[in-house]
Amino acid sequence: MYTVGIDLGGTNIAIGICDEDLNIIAKASIPTDKSCGGEGVVAGMAALTKQLMRKNKIDISQIEYVGMALPGSIDSELGIIEYSNNLPFENFPICDEFRKRFNVEKIYIENDANAAALAEALCGVARGVRTSVMITLGTGVGGGVIIDGKIFKGGVNSAGAELGHTVIKAGGRLCTCGRRGCFEAYSSATGLITSTVEMMKELEAKGIPSRLFEIAQRDGKVSAKTAFEAKSMGDEAGTKLVNEYISDLAVGITNMVNIFQPEVLSIGGGVSNAGSELLIPLAKIVDREQYARNNPKKHLLAIAALKNDAGIIGAAGLGRQFYDGKKQR
Amino acid sequence: MYTVGIDLGGTNIAIGICDEDLNIIAKASIPTDKSCGGEGVVAGMAALTKQLMRKNKIDISQIEYVGMALPGSIDSELGIIEYSNNLPFENFPICDEFRKRFNVEKIYIENDANAAALAEALCGVARGVRTSVMITLGTGVGGGVIIDGKIFKGGVNSAGAELGHTVIKAGGRLCTCGRRGCFEAYSSATGLITSTVEMMKELEAKGIPSRLFEIAQRDGKVSAKTAFEAKSMGDEAGTKLVNEYISDLAVGITNMVNIFQPEVLSIGGGVSNAGSELLIPLAKIVDREQYARNNPKKHLLAIAALKNDAGIIGAAGLGRQFYDGKKQR
Repeated sequence: MYTVGIDLGGTNIAIGICDEDLNIIAKASIPTDKSCGGEGVVAGMAALTKQLMRKNKIDISQIEYVGMALPGSIDSELGIIEYSNNLPFENFPICDEFRKRFNVEKIYIENDANAAALAEALCGVARGVRTSVMITLGTGVGGGVIIDGKIFKGGVNSAGAELGHTVIKAGGRLCTCGRRGCFEAYSSATGLITSTVEMMKELEAKGIPSRLFEIAQRDGKVSAKTAFEAKSMGDEAGTKLVNEYISDLAVGITNMVNIFQPEVLSIGGGVSNAGSELLIPLAKIVDREQYARNNPKKHLLAIAALKNDAGIIGAAGLGRQFYDGKKQR
Repeated sequence: MYTVGIDLGGTNIAIGICDEDLNIIAKASIPTDKSCGGEGVVAGMAALTKQLMRKNKIDISQIEYVGMALPGSIDSELGIIEYSNNLPFENFPICDEFRKRFNVEKIYIENDANAAALAEALCGVARGVRTSVMITLGTGVGGGVIIDGKIFKGGVNSAGAELGHTVIKAGGRLCTCGRRGCFEAYSSATGLITSTVEMMKELEAKGIPSRLFEIAQRDGKVSAKTAFEAKSMGDEAGTKLVNEYISDLAVGITNMVNIFQPEVLSIGGGVSNAGSELLIPLAKIVDREQYARNNPKKHLLAIAALKNDAGIIGAAGLGRQFYDGKKQR
């Protein structure tokens, strides 16, 4: 039997067919076409799934279930996307709509950050571990928490584990959620870009040169990489930006360690591509600051392993989230 | 059958015998005598338990188990107090030591904040609810999290749910844990006292009168009540202190709502005696700020119900923490 994992993003739909050990045996992607609303998006998902199955000579009778990693507030029990920032869904019965076009009984849906955390727990850096946290540093700061091998979804509402929307600097920078000083406002790629742009304005006003300007000009934009690259060239402003970014990130990560004491805390998303440049100084601060620092049992802080496949694997693994020490790959 | 709940504090040992519905049918307390080390404390606990049973004509054969709510880092599986701030315990095998003096097979031990959260979930304001959080505003800020009817203990170490040691103001006030800007540093009774003392120094330096001075003089000290009482008299400085205190508290509480989306979040500890003076303005901010604020499913923010009995009831209930919709009172 196979499972289908669908990773629905605001830009692309990525679909994978996985074997029972969650190896992706085939995958494909298409741009997300939002022009025909939610139903159009679902039609695209179903069509691509069928095409991929045909190409790989897999019959629908061989599909155990379909899993979907979806952006936004998800009611997994009712099979509904309550709300999505970047997609035309509002209280949209995505499971029923998909089933109209693809005749499978079992469909699991989950928030994409939660699915990515599950993927890391099933097949990635948190493999074989009961309690883990994944923090995704992308446009926002996503959070997923795995407790006893299962996604922790929160008690009420479909919005538990919104780890990015915890304030680390009361009264600070305005966050997209409306609060001031959220972890996300500082530690997302967007947060780092904001800091870089602010710094460049300041340098410009003072007439101080910096590698930041050259890099931004070469790339045609300021990105989360700009500061890291300037730092690697020994640039003073770049170094300051990266150090401050890591210092703020460490505050948020240490908070999560003190709350969850996870066996593994993995870091994914675009900023995590900085690798050990990010991880080593970060781990140093977290180890020093965390509450149980004198305890011999350590947390593993790691860069997430599954990169762009995390959504597909997490979606395909949604029916495998009951920890028994065996079912996991 | 009965269960014994022991609430061990730095000042007093409180013991209760509970019936199967966790009603306290008899209780007693003695001062904690630390002069003979950990063994002396345990001897006191065992002696008081026996005395209470004798008085109430209860035989040891009628005791299903003994539960203990203990301050500090607890390894419930090994039956060890790893470390306690206020008591002479370090990697102390409290279950074995107690069993030497009181011949009962089953002993459960738990951190006191976790036990209090369980008590509220079993018999208090979070009764019948699967997911709840309790925040205790006392000398520190304690946190207990109940997920699916069980205490959430964290993945590694015996220090999960250290909700008070999450930074809400990066770089802010120094906390007892060594970090700067912790929730505890602002929202504990100690935090409010610190703010009150700072404010009084400022007023004194400027020669500005305030009710704060009269109240502190009458009581012979500044307490967490000082600011609340001054506010109730219309005092400007008192009002400012209470408003700032509630504003910071709301930051920490909203963080926990965004992480756990608890059905009930209860507030206990000394400061919670301020009741609706605290709760109403607090709930207003949390409702406005929390991530799922547009969702119709609301969280109940409540003052904890069990007050000084929470430790005894939580300890006595440690063997009852498997949610099945029936076992709970």
